[in-house]
Amino acid sequence: MSLVAADERLAACLPAGVLRPPEDRYLDEPRGRYRGQAGLVAAPRSVDEVAAIVRACAAARVAIVPRGGGTGLVGGSVMPAGPAPLVLSLERMAAVRAVWPEEDVLVAEAGCTLAAAQDAAQQAGRMFPLSIASQGTAQIGGVLAANAGGTAVLRWGNARALCLGIEAVLPDGSILRELRRLRKDNTGYSLRDLLIGGEGTLGIITAASLRMAPLPAGIATAMLAVPGPAEALALLALAQGRFAGCVTTFELISGVGLDFLAETLPAIRQPLPGAPWSVLLELSLPEGLGPDEALTGLLEQAMGTGLVTDGAVAQSGAQAGEFWSLREHLPEANRRIGVVSSHDISLPLSEIPRFIEDAGAMLAGMGDMRVNCFGHLGDGNLHYNVFPAAGRRREDYDALRPRVQEAVHQMVVDRGGSFSAEHGVGRLKAADLARWGDPARLAAMRAIKAALDPSGIMNPGAVLA
Amino acid sequence: MSLVAADERLAACLPAGVLRPPEDRYLDEPRGRYRGQAGLVAAPRSVDEVAAIVRACAAARVAIVPRGGGTGLVGGSVMPAGPAPLVLSLERMAAVRAVWPEEDVLVAEAGCTLAAAQDAAQQAGRMFPLSIASQGTAQIGGVLAANAGGTAVLRWGNARALCLGIEAVLPDGSILRELRRLRKDNTGYSLRDLLIGGEGTLGIITAASLRMAPLPAGIATAMLAVPGPAEALALLALAQGRFAGCVTTFELISGVGLDFLAETLPAIRQPLPGAPWSVLLELSLPEGLGPDEALTGLLEQAMGTGLVTDGAVAQSGAQAGEFWSLREHLPEANRRIGVVSSHDISLPLSEIPRFIEDAGAMLAGMGDMRVNCFGHLGDGNLHYNVFPAAGRRREDYDALRPRVQEAVHQMVVDRGGSFSAEHGVGRLKAADLARWGDPARLAAMRAIKAALDPSGIMNPGAVLA
Repeated sequence: MSLVAADERLAACLPAGVLRPPEDRYLDEPRGRYRGQAGLVAAPRSVDEVAAIVRACAAARVAIVPRGGGTGLVGGSVMPAGPAPLVLSLERMAAVRAVWPEEDVLVAEAGCTLAAAQDAAQQAGRMFPLSIASQGTAQIGGVLAANAGGTAVLRWGNARALCLGIEAVLPDGSILRELRRLRKDNTGYSLRDLLIGGEGTLGIITAASLRMAPLPAGIATAMLAVPGPAEALALLALAQGRFAGCVTTFELISGVGLDFLAETLPAIRQPLPGAPWSVLLELSLPEGLGPDEALTGLLEQAMGTGLVTDGAVAQSGAQAGEFWSLREHLPEANRRIGVVSSHDISLPLSEIPRFIEDAGAMLAGMGDMRVNCFGHLGDGNLHYNVFPAAGRRREDYDALRPRVQEAVHQMVVDRGGSFSAEHGVGRLKAADLARWGDPARLAAMRAIKAALDPSGIMNPGAVLA
Repeated sequence: MSLVAADERLAACLPAGVLRPPEDRYLDEPRGRYRGQAGLVAAPRSVDEVAAIVRACAAARVAIVPRGGGTGLVGGSVMPAGPAPLVLSLERMAAVRAVWPEEDVLVAEAGCTLAAAQDAAQQAGRMFPLSIASQGTAQIGGVLAANAGGTAVLRWGNARALCLGIEAVLPDGSILRELRRLRKDNTGYSLRDLLIGGEGTLGIITAASLRMAPLPAGIATAMLAVPGPAEALALLALAQGRFAGCVTTFELISGVGLDFLAETLPAIRQPLPGAPWSVLLELSLPEGLGPDEALTGLLEQAMGTGLVTDGAVAQSGAQAGEFWSLREHLPEANRRIGVVSSHDISLPLSEIPRFIEDAGAMLAGMGDMRVNCFGHLGDGNLHYNVFPAAGRRREDYDALRPRVQEAVHQMVVDRGGSFSAEHGVGRLKAADLARWGDPARLAAMRAIKAALDPSGIMNPGAVLA
């Protein structure tokens, strides 16, 4: 019953013309932690070809690794061990099949990049409100398989919330034809929500119908200095109350992050240099309420109550772009500094201030390190990243790294948080899931996996180790 | 392997004090189509007691029918045939366990009524933005099991979108402890989203962490006459664009509905009597934009382009309440007229105008009937209800009823719609699901059901016939 390596006999059973040379781009991942094996690579052109490939692999007992843009950060799309799999790339299914502006819906194939889906929405006078750093390369199929998040989740939800329907091939080669464009459909179990976030272990999403959103009449963007995370959260509650829940972005930036930017990317303009904590705030505004008017009222109230100590309000789209550029360059600055250990965590909002304090104290007790804690505070999602002390190198921390990682994750779990907020489990965190996942859910997950993929051909080793 | 009737031996194995007399209220449903059997009724006080009951039933091979407020419209909580089940009522688990205003989260037990959850949010200066007609009786567990919708889905989503985490007992008696308060958590399959909408066939939800929303700074409410459904949809797109997607409610009301109100409930004031089609519109407004200012701009534009022909803008909360009262009395007027066949359908938004036209023509060809088509147009969800011609009785249509139902559902399915938008499948539509459901999804649903509930004890006969 065990799986075998993809080979020439399998190749002969595949639809004509789907095979690709096993180039590096099918086998690597952004952080270089894993490298896939050079088995077969197939790039089907239609859902029927995907189904034929899955059936052939099921018959031959060959593992399938679905591959989107390859931008995932947890090794979900590379299989470094076991019999060589067939890598199934969706790159040739990249069409935007249709756009219905009057429905705020578009249907895109799995291989369509997120940026291309955004463009299609923009051309229809709408937006596709999911935004992540890798959007030029990340593909819709992968975005859904990983249930991607990003900077607009606060207002529009994650990938799951933006998906109305999917077309997918299940592990038995059957085709799920549910490209529905419905806001409401209560006809049984939501298989869609199972495949979304399933990281390719329960089937291959080949296309999706996606919700678009209206372009707002106006946008207000500001960078605001706050005394600390607790005041940042109070500011968020204040802003949500004032703007009927229309805060689109609420990103926390730490002083350490600003230092890293100044050190590694000095060309990036800093509107509030030296602020120990700041927030990038964006509001979607209705017709009749201008950005200045909206922010003036908010800032008066926030400064009057000590939630904000300083602020810069974007006076133009270009200036808003500068603020965003600062936020978007934080990961690159981190890369240049060289991380000891990075953590994509989430916590109940009210736990965050104490967590930041306690985790900082804990790490200070473990060694001499710097913490750059930033990210999607509005979603309770922090990128809590640990760096070498000034003047030291990341290699100096090789022995400490696993202890740091475990201690941070343990503290997160103890406080009701998640050790993978938006990046997924993949192979990197499969052991973490086995350790910290709710036992009843893990057992149910295994039962579902066995029921839908009894031979275990779909992305083995990901999610469920 | 088949199930047996609940009996005294099972009763002896249950936790002390959980049994209740099998009163009518545990066995009926609002439309009187089904009547449950008088087996055992158990009302546990804790998740551990729920688990003990499930384990006892699994061992004895007795079916369990989970019971919330009993307001479901598809017979999901009554089991009229087969060996008498144990009815498991959540009524004694009715607490709001905690409220975190600063997180916009509350945790409620399954037996808490929707109205009580709304009250708890209100007391915390927030709202729980799910609103359905039966909210005084419907319980959170049932609301989630049915993935209830209602009048605020357009802005805040359905029950699924408002649930961050659940505590549940799975069919093997294991307890899923995932009362998470996280906006982002990508750690494996979303079992929560499977139980939500699972109608009690995959487990029993015992508590949930729910998203609250900020109270808006202002609310604008208007009743607007429109030439027809196409113009209503264009008005919706216009309003969403003007208000950054903050249209909270967009309900379609037909002239037939107004006639029925005038005939059966003449005390209900009609602001736009005789309008062939009208819309109840509600906007959530930010600080700095008043209701009059917001609506004046919208109405100028909408009347200038012929989308709106007449309108009444609420000048007070009391007047808004009158508009809502009209909308909320439509079902009662329908009941007094006496329906031939009612349909809870959804369609892609752009299909709706033609569907209303074509379905009307089709029914006119089948017999002399009146159609009251109303509901959550913003969600593509219509309550498409068919009535006797004036002067005739519903009994006159007994022979026609099944043909009407089938013809309407077939037309909905042919156009990419759903035959159950928000009410669920239950027992009433299990045959419809078997007939019209996607074959691959049905097979996967059956595999999941068999994997999680191999003995078939959880609400047998619901969803999957």
